[in-house]
Amino acid sequence: MTLKDDQNGRTRLLVLHGPNLNLLGLREPHIYGTLSLAEINSALKERASEGNVELRIVQSNNEGALIDEIHSARDWASGILINAGAYTHTSYALRDAISAVGLPTVEIHLSNIYAREEFRHHSVLAAVCKGQISGFGQDSYLLGLQALLGVIGTE
Amino acid sequence: MTLKDDQNGRTRLLVLHGPNLNLLGLREPHIYGTLSLAEINSALKERASEGNVELRIVQSNNEGALIDEIHSARDWASGILINAGAYTHTSYALRDAISAVGLPTVEIHLSNIYAREEFRHHSVLAAVCKGQISGFGQDSYLLGLQALLGVIGTE
Amino acid sequence: MTLKDDQNGRTRLLVLHGPNLNLLGLREPHIYGTLSLAEINSALKERASEGNVELRIVQSNNEGALIDEIHSARDWASGILINAGAYTHTSYALRDAISAVGLPTVEIHLSNIYAREEFRHHSVLAAVCKGQISGFGQDSYLLGLQALLGVIGTE
Amino acid sequence: MTLKDDQNGRTRLLVLHGPNLNLLGLREPHIYGTLSLAEINSALKERASEGNVELRIVQSNNEGALIDEIHSARDWASGILINAGAYTHTSYALRDAISAVGLPTVEIHLSNIYAREEFRHHSVLAAVCKGQISGFGQDSYLLGLQALLGVIGTE
Amino acid sequence: MTLKDDQNGRTRLLVLHGPNLNLLGLREPHIYGTLSLAEINSALKERASEGNVELRIVQSNNEGALIDEIHSARDWASGILINAGAYTHTSYALRDAISAVGLPTVEIHLSNIYAREEFRHHSVLAAVCKGQISGFGQDSYLLGLQALLGVIGTE
Amino acid sequence: MTLKDDQNGRTRLLVLHGPNLNLLGLREPHIYGTLSLAEINSALKERASEGNVELRIVQSNNEGALIDEIHSARDWASGILINAGAYTHTSYALRDAISAVGLPTVEIHLSNIYAREEFRHHSVLAAVCKGQISGFGQDSYLLGLQALLGVIGTE
Amino acid sequence: MTLKDDQNGRTRLLVLHGPNLNLLGLREPHIYGTLSLAEINSALKERASEGNVELRIVQSNNEGALIDEIHSARDWASGILINAGAYTHTSYALRDAISAVGLPTVEIHLSNIYAREEFRHHSVLAAVCKGQISGFGQDSYLLGLQALLGVIGTE
Amino acid sequence: MTLKDDQNGRTRLLVLHGPNLNLLGLREPHIYGTLSLAEINSALKERASEGNVELRIVQSNNEGALIDEIHSARDWASGILINAGAYTHTSYALRDAISAVGLPTVEIHLSNIYAREEFRHHSVLAAVCKGQISGFGQDSYLLGLQALLGVIGTE
Amino acid sequence: MTLKDDQNGRTRLLVLHGPNLNLLGLREPHIYGTLSLAEINSALKERASEGNVELRIVQSNNEGALIDEIHSARDWASGILINAGAYTHTSYALRDAISAVGLPTVEIHLSNIYAREEFRHHSVLAAVCKGQISGFGQDSYLLGLQALLGVIGTE
Amino acid sequence: MTLKDDQNGRTRLLVLHGPNLNLLGLREPHIYGTLSLAEINSALKERASEGNVELRIVQSNNEGALIDEIHSARDWASGILINAGAYTHTSYALRDAISAVGLPTVEIHLSNIYAREEFRHHSVLAAVCKGQISGFGQDSYLLGLQALLGVIGTE
Amino acid sequence: MTLKDDQNGRTRLLVLHGPNLNLLGLREPHIYGTLSLAEINSALKERASEGNVELRIVQSNNEGALIDEIHSARDWASGILINAGAYTHTSYALRDAISAVGLPTVEIHLSNIYAREEFRHHSVLAAVCKGQISGFGQDSYLLGLQALLGVIGTE
Amino acid sequence: MTLKDDQNGRTRLLVLHGPNLNLLGLREPHIYGTLSLAEINSALKERASEGNVELRIVQSNNEGALIDEIHSARDWASGILINAGAYTHTSYALRDAISAVGLPTVEIHLSNIYAREEFRHHSVLAAVCKGQISGFGQDSYLLGLQALLGVIGTE
Repeated sequence: MTLKDDQNGRTRLLVLHGPNLNLLGLREPHIYGTLSLAEINSALKERASEGNVELRIVQSNNEGALIDEIHSARDWASGILINAGAYTHTSYALRDAISAVGLPTVEIHLSNIYAREEFRHHSVLAAVCKGQISGFGQDSYLLGLQALLGVIGTE
Repeated sequence: MTLKDDQNGRTRLLVLHGPNLNLLGLREPHIYGTLSLAEINSALKERASEGNVELRIVQSNNEGALIDEIHSARDWASGILINAGAYTHTSYALRDAISAVGLPTVEIHLSNIYAREEFRHHSVLAAVCKGQISGFGQDSYLLGLQALLGVIGTE
Repeated sequence: MTLKDDQNGRTRLLVLHGPNLNLLGLREPHIYGTLSLAEINSALKERASEGNVELRIVQSNNEGALIDEIHSARDWASGILINAGAYTHTSYALRDAISAVGLPTVEIHLSNIYAREEFRHHSVLAAVCKGQISGFGQDSYLLGLQALLGVIGTE
Repeated sequence: MTLKDDQNGRTRLLVLHGPNLNLLGLREPHIYGTLSLAEINSALKERASEGNVELRIVQSNNEGALIDEIHSARDWASGILINAGAYTHTSYALRDAISAVGLPTVEIHLSNIYAREEFRHHSVLAAVCKGQISGFGQDSYLLGLQALLGVIGTE
Repeated sequence: MTLKDDQNGRTRLLVLHGPNLNLLGLREPHIYGTLSLAEINSALKERASEGNVELRIVQSNNEGALIDEIHSARDWASGILINAGAYTHTSYALRDAISAVGLPTVEIHLSNIYAREEFRHHSVLAAVCKGQISGFGQDSYLLGLQALLGVIGTE
Repeated sequence: MTLKDDQNGRTRLLVLHGPNLNLLGLREPHIYGTLSLAEINSALKERASEGNVELRIVQSNNEGALIDEIHSARDWASGILINAGAYTHTSYALRDAISAVGLPTVEIHLSNIYAREEFRHHSVLAAVCKGQISGFGQDSYLLGLQALLGVIGTE
Repeated sequence: MTLKDDQNGRTRLLVLHGPNLNLLGLREPHIYGTLSLAEINSALKERASEGNVELRIVQSNNEGALIDEIHSARDWASGILINAGAYTHTSYALRDAISAVGLPTVEIHLSNIYAREEFRHHSVLAAVCKGQISGFGQDSYLLGLQALLGVIGTE
Repeated sequence: MTLKDDQNGRTRLLVLHGPNLNLLGLREPHIYGTLSLAEINSALKERASEGNVELRIVQSNNEGALIDEIHSARDWASGILINAGAYTHTSYALRDAISAVGLPTVEIHLSNIYAREEFRHHSVLAAVCKGQISGFGQDSYLLGLQALLGVIGTE
Repeated sequence: MTLKDDQNGRTRLLVLHGPNLNLLGLREPHIYGTLSLAEINSALKERASEGNVELRIVQSNNEGALIDEIHSARDWASGILINAGAYTHTSYALRDAISAVGLPTVEIHLSNIYAREEFRHHSVLAAVCKGQISGFGQDSYLLGLQALLGVIGTE
Repeated sequence: MTLKDDQNGRTRLLVLHGPNLNLLGLREPHIYGTLSLAEINSALKERASEGNVELRIVQSNNEGALIDEIHSARDWASGILINAGAYTHTSYALRDAISAVGLPTVEIHLSNIYAREEFRHHSVLAAVCKGQISGFGQDSYLLGLQALLGVIGTE
Repeated sequence: MTLKDDQNGRTRLLVLHGPNLNLLGLREPHIYGTLSLAEINSALKERASEGNVELRIVQSNNEGALIDEIHSARDWASGILINAGAYTHTSYALRDAISAVGLPTVEIHLSNIYAREEFRHHSVLAAVCKGQISGFGQDSYLLGLQALLGVIGTE
Repeated sequence: MTLKDDQNGRTRLLVLHGPNLNLLGLREPHIYGTLSLAEINSALKERASEGNVELRIVQSNNEGALIDEIHSARDWASGILINAGAYTHTSYALRDAISAVGLPTVEIHLSNIYAREEFRHHSVLAAVCKGQISGFGQDSYLLGLQALLGVIGTE
């Protein structure tokens, strides 16, 4: 049990959903699927609890609020799973936040961002994350959780 | 009367003013004119009431707050009139919000953005809006309101 | 009544339709709508006569002929409403003509040019026009007329 | 016999020669060959008559006139064979005309445009034509005629 | 059991390793880790057999041979897991092969390609794959296998 | 009869099909048509035999094998007809091979490469070929054969 | 006296004024000066007559008409002095016309095109002209005439 | 004493710290140094009080909040000292805020942004600031304060 | 007679020849002609003396020396005629020198720089000169002298 | 006292002024201010003497001479303050000189180079300097001196 | 004698010739010279044997085969001399192979690739080779051998 | 013995060292090695004397001085060996000097310029030199001397 684990020895992770992800299931289901964000969060928590992992899950449309969450994770989390939505492509401030806290971070995307509009092909976060998973809908989150735990386990 | 109209059968629309528009009239009048935002809002409301239209008008300097407003409009509005200020040129998150709620949206600009600095020549919102009106000062808003009602009427 | 108004004190304006607009209604109706150019012209004239405005309406596929019309407007018109079709994206000669005659000019487009092919995203005319309206089909013309009158009224 | 064929059941096609092609034979023979336009036209007509095809052949240096011809072909022709000369590289108005009339169109070039100056490497017409043939001198026209008939036969 | 499964009802998948991956473990371990390709293949097969999946695993430095393998998978495989090495960034022929056979394909990378040289930031394969996983070393393969099975299960 | 013709005085030509063309008819028929490569080859041979021409037809997914074929043609062929598939857009090695053997070469494409993805708009081979034919499906090959014979006849 | 000189042994030259130059003196005098085109033409003719030179001077806003004039010059003129206005920056058709007739041509501009908008910095005609003179107002024409005569004298 | 000075005649200035600067000292000390933001603020205030200057110092990770602060400075401050962190490179909304309030503004950076990643080489704020100081760690702030006072003194 | 004229009332001008021009006549005569620099200087001086103009002519391969000459001209010359050779395309320091002294300056080139290598198509000096003459060999200098005198006469 | 200090223990620094700075005060005062270089040098020396610092100040329009000065500073100076004028934007040789001698160097600019022409926005020196100060007129030098002393003090 | 030397203590090196080099002497002699590959190989071997060096020389048109050769060199060679032909400009797979085996590698070219087509100006291999020699025909190989031995000797 | 050889029949060559090379050995030894320029010159002279070659060796930080040296070589040298340092990447004036004198020239670099900063990847001199050698430290000079003699011997 490392210092960052909780009293029950559970690994604690931050899961961040960026702008517009609160509309999941309601929004363009041909692109993002029909599951709501609540359903994805449930699935994530279930999977987490199987692995003795505790998740704090936050969604915000506000770039600054996402940065604040990343900063606070510095004190209590062992890693970050982030789907930054459209901020993926423009937010150097988010990128700096990830660099600054130094926690292993995995970037995920529901859709295959490389098969969509040109502006979605480039992630400004990717270079400071451990890795990236895109294109598998809800599974992107579950695979990302698994990947993140793998990264934390081998650091 | 569609479901989204209010009890009096009035069409309800969201009018969004982006960053720095709260300074209208005070700010660079040779570019943006001498009318204050309050005056423009009055003119918009007057014109709206003539057409049995009810407006919710919001100004914010905060990208996330603008996205939140667009999301909430999903439940009550028939369309959106937006002057996103400088976020016009960079905010893919706003663009995704407009796409996500699927409401007909009209983009307006007070000044002729194509006669100003290079970075103002490109709108990342334009492709997901119904149309764009720029260059007519306060009239851009009034024409935009009219255009939006036209779009809603023919959908 | 200014010198450029006609004997009945009507404001006189030039309306220019550029290349391929003669095929309106016949041509790709999913993009340009089902109204013919004649129908649009009728609607424009009706709206104009309501406002004591007289219109000269010209369509040409010929860049030089469009320039000639703009030049001649110097002597009799108070403003120009122009849909330059594909010349919008390439004709610096049209741009120079608009600059040269110095009449307030409003640029309009039937379709939302920013939601179409890349080459349609840039207008070489925009910087010398007062403003631009795009994406509202026939309404682009009617709103443009209104915008132009607003501009003329406040100069 | 379709409605567009003439009284003798002949397929009717438009052949368009763009700017400077009237100088063929006289102009830079190392690039364009020594045949005059009249000789090419004769060869085309002879080949056409063998296949029960009637050609209207027009050369113009005027972009607008070429557009007008394409428009008129809408009523009587089953397809278009076009060598747009230098307008190939810049005329979105010609491109729109081809799109607008919706006739199968084959683009040809006498010289291999890809082995010449950089600006000749890109055709703005190609995307709206059925296909392109370049580099075979007079044979480009004859092969283009054959290709066009093939396209018409299989639509 | 679909037709493509083997006699034991096992799902059959193709795993492709592109150029230089035969040197894994020997080659730049700070980038690619210390596991040999044989060790990764063993781990993959073990994981596969747990899920009743049969793998054909091929490594080649030859672009044409990789294409041939993809073609042959058309007849027997339910999906493809591919790490195309440096061909990721240049091989439109591989991309066309993936498109042509129409099998669900998952692209993986051992290292975080977005944190390395500029030329590794762009995958020409990504747009025709279901999704992409990069940056997790051997785990990229195991997660990719899992992701691919998820995709196949939901098609 | 030149030295390169065979004993029966037949002109001998090399026909090269590049990567993925072996899947013709099976692969994306909306783009490439429903004819198999075997059917196209039959049609080509039939047309060739009418003109006293003998064809060697080779398909390979391997860039090096295609180059080897071009080299060997140096000794026995009078010209080359090539559809290099996706190598068209990247293979300077194929380009050098065509330059090196110095045989007249005609480049063909089944689909209109200029109406597809951006990366297909540029051929690195075009500048060293006599000409290019694209967009006519099987007819691209037949027209290409005819064009090549025309080129050989006039050299 | 060469064959192209007139009966009085005068060298005959074509002077071409492109689009919008008919408005000289009226149009933006701070850029183009206050002389009318007629005044410039008079000055040119006077200077020409001093040197036993006869000028044909044509102004047109029509690209095709300018090309026609260049073609006709092939039969009677010894050189061309051209101010192509805005066509300078886009008209490859004019460029081809100049190349095609093969007459020595001097390109002139009233204003210093390199001190104005970016799009005016590039002339597509320059590479096929003998030389270029820009920035000297009316004197650009007079110096251009002198330069052209110098070129003709030394060929 | 101007109207904006406080009751004690002290010049009042706004000091803005942008995203992630709250982590100073904790974050990548090899880049940003080991001083905390609190220590820098103390040093700034000490220096300010020596010069009879009163500072309002604000840090926020939120773009909108930074804009709000700039707006409010319009009423009470004589100038702004800003380290906009990563918003420096993307926030046209901040730029517009600086322009809009019209206060003299000095842009500072702790690290030498020109010796770091490419995306940090361009400041969208620089053109509307009086000047820029980068690369001197805490001294950037102290020199910036001095520079700002110099600018205010000479306006 | 202005203060800058010499005792005999002659207008004094600086003529600057940049790098490699000392090799004129010896260097690539197919590009630069066969006249030596001395011969060109003689012709210039002769022409100057006809117009009561006195020339100081300097050639240097050294950018700094050229700048020093421009600076010194501030005190005695009425204008500058400059052929900056290859510094034309790179020397912002020369450009600043021309701006700084504020003397009317004419830029000339022996060859048509627009018909040569790409890097010669752009002059960094052009925007701060009155005008440019290129392509007429020695005559470029003589015409340039004449143009410069015209500019000086009308300022 | 380090070895590089002079006999009186004074820190010795090199101050370099690049091309055209000798014209300060005379040259474009709206950009560069009205102080002469001598006045700036006096102010610098006065400030230096207050801090027990000795300055060698050199101005040259010659890139090579500036490099020579930097080289010589290697033996006697503790740091360099440089305003490289227009060489800032092009001189990789100056950049290499600064790297080569390894002395802490501060780059300054009188004007805000980011608010001027595009070519002035990029400094090729910045990446090898400690920091940069621009936009404060004479104060840029004084602040730069202070910044340089700070850098030297903490190395 | 290191482990990699053969039984006779000879240094063993791999010499790789890429695509189309088998046609040397036959292919475009004005570019590549008249020596055949066999002659070059003889010269290389002769020179090698003088220096107690043993060469394995391989030519292939196949990218994968070249990679295989580089891999195998890992076990027996002390260095690689490579002329990758056109793969020089595109093959990141070859580049990775050179990196992966970690042998000192010298890149050579017969012709001066910087004086040829634009696409030949960039080598994707250069950054992972020790050095590059181009432009000296056969001597490029001999100098390259010498350079490689120098590099090996000093590692 | 050609005319350019000296009295003893020795071939005479110019060796030019560009900016900052005087600091060799002192400057960044991890990039440029530990040999001083004097040591390299000695090695060069020794090697030269073995081959009956006489060298004039010049180093200058001054672009103009390097050009002057190249010019003077026209009279006495049979070839030039040049390491132009950072001028390699910007000096079209040096390039013109090399072209102008027409002597065979070999370009060398101590370091592998293709493995360093982006701006060092392009040589503006390369296209007018016979060949280029980079990356071998002092050996680059010795190999360059040998290469140059080879070139001279075969011209």
